[in-house]
Amino acid sequence: MSDAPSCTAVSAAPAGSSEFDRDTAVRTLRPGVHEAQLSPGWAIGTALNGGYLLAVVGRALRQALPHPDPFTVTAHYLTATTAGPATVRTSVARGGRTVSTASAGLFQRDESGTEVERIRVLATYGELDALRGEVRTSAKPPAVPPQEQCFRATDHPGGDAAVPEMGRRLDLRLDPETCGWALGAPSMRGEIRGWLGLADGRDPDPLSLLMAVDALPPTGFDLGLTGWVPTVELTAHVRARPAPGPLRIAITTRNLAGGFLEEDAEVWDSADRLVAQSRQLARA
Amino acid sequence: MSDAPSCTAVSAAPAGSSEFDRDTAVRTLRPGVHEAQLSPGWAIGTALNGGYLLAVVGRALRQALPHPDPFTVTAHYLTATTAGPATVRTSVARGGRTVSTASAGLFQRDESGTEVERIRVLATYGELDALRGEVRTSAKPPAVPPQEQCFRATDHPGGDAAVPEMGRRLDLRLDPETCGWALGAPSMRGEIRGWLGLADGRDPDPLSLLMAVDALPPTGFDLGLTGWVPTVELTAHVRARPAPGPLRIAITTRNLAGGFLEEDAEVWDSADRLVAQSRQLARA
Repeated sequence: MSDAPSCTAVSAAPAGSSEFDRDTAVRTLRPGVHEAQLSPGWAIGTALNGGYLLAVVGRALRQALPHPDPFTVTAHYLTATTAGPATVRTSVARGGRTVSTASAGLFQRDESGTEVERIRVLATYGELDALRGEVRTSAKPPAVPPQEQCFRATDHPGGDAAVPEMGRRLDLRLDPETCGWALGAPSMRGEIRGWLGLADGRDPDPLSLLMAVDALPPTGFDLGLTGWVPTVELTAHVRARPAPGPLRIAITTRNLAGGFLEEDAEVWDSADRLVAQSRQLARA
Repeated sequence: MSDAPSCTAVSAAPAGSSEFDRDTAVRTLRPGVHEAQLSPGWAIGTALNGGYLLAVVGRALRQALPHPDPFTVTAHYLTATTAGPATVRTSVARGGRTVSTASAGLFQRDESGTEVERIRVLATYGELDALRGEVRTSAKPPAVPPQEQCFRATDHPGGDAAVPEMGRRLDLRLDPETCGWALGAPSMRGEIRGWLGLADGRDPDPLSLLMAVDALPPTGFDLGLTGWVPTVELTAHVRARPAPGPLRIAITTRNLAGGFLEEDAEVWDSADRLVAQSRQLARA
């Protein structure tokens, strides 16, 4: 991407020592039981971001399965997850030669100490680096202006106070053409495009893509919806290991009906490859 | 659809007495345990169709959950399912006021009598008739020629013998423009469009939509792939209760890479409403 200064120009944090890796770390107590400490750093308002939580569960699944990379991951969001301790319970359905499948649940304790399930997940993992075969694609990367022409969260007219906590973890640059909603003039097309990196310069990998697919402001904003758009279910396909450098993401909604909408995300890497596709069903 | 003779013109089988209802019936033995008798009538070659199996599991989930309609259903296909007895085990994650979520597994016994899991499912159900709110959609129905100008399975150059068993359960009419592959000339666009009804005239409903999203020949055929394209994972969103009459379905693939491809399906009803969306990850 000659026209795109790599996000890693900032202060490249190697994978492992980055905010993202620290905040998605899980400790396996015994087979099928993993502990996590959910960070308030990924909150949007009071709730933790669904993509961040998916990456935490994704890390637990990587420890539970014989394959390292998420190929297809579905999460159903049951109750609001808060910062603090959480337990991920994994249950392997099948460990195959090329792919393996497992369920997972993320649990937290309520005031009374009772365990409450926050998210239930079903996923199939494989090994991206083992994939062979031609690429025959008609998909095209989204047209996003160079980063220096895009809006950063800190450019928000509401000022720094208007930046959600998660915004400080990200290097997010939104295409001005899809930011009218921030100025009270949504395009009503239901599309938002932008560049995404991690604020500390940590490069993307298959796990961080699970966060990336849910990192942009909701398309609902561009459809003139006010207020948050809670995710009922999100499915992400990781199609290739992302090259170093910033990601380009386009999210679109075609059908808002009966109080629900789908939000599709496409994630492209700096080598112009479609590295992830996702769709979520959300409440308007 | 003035230009579309309703499939029910044939010999309308009311829901309940149709082949589809009989072949997807489940008997609940006790909470969480449901018996099914999988019919060879939905086979394509030796394997049973993934959409048919999803409808069987969907019926068991309807019995396990307080809400009647699938809103979002994800299935991971673990091992090939064969005709004969099967057990569906359901486990409710959360029963909410407006939606409820559960996992399910479909099991069969192998030669040695050991139970083997064939499919693992995660789903959220709700009540379509309770949905309110405007429709703000930019999606357009696929352009499919009138049914009498489309190809039926029985028009296959290979003759009746070339029609998979499942084809006899369906009234499927494919847009000739997307049938070149049947004559050895795939368009390479990765798109197939057509009309779908049930052969006995039974009208579509939310459960039959789970079959409909996987009922067309795979887009891989139109991309010049030979041989079958096994589904790894399929997620279907049911967005509205379908009106009586034939469905229009368009399936598309944009990205074939590393031996995997996504296949997106859109299902439209006779009232021009987008009633279901699905995406599957399949092996080329």
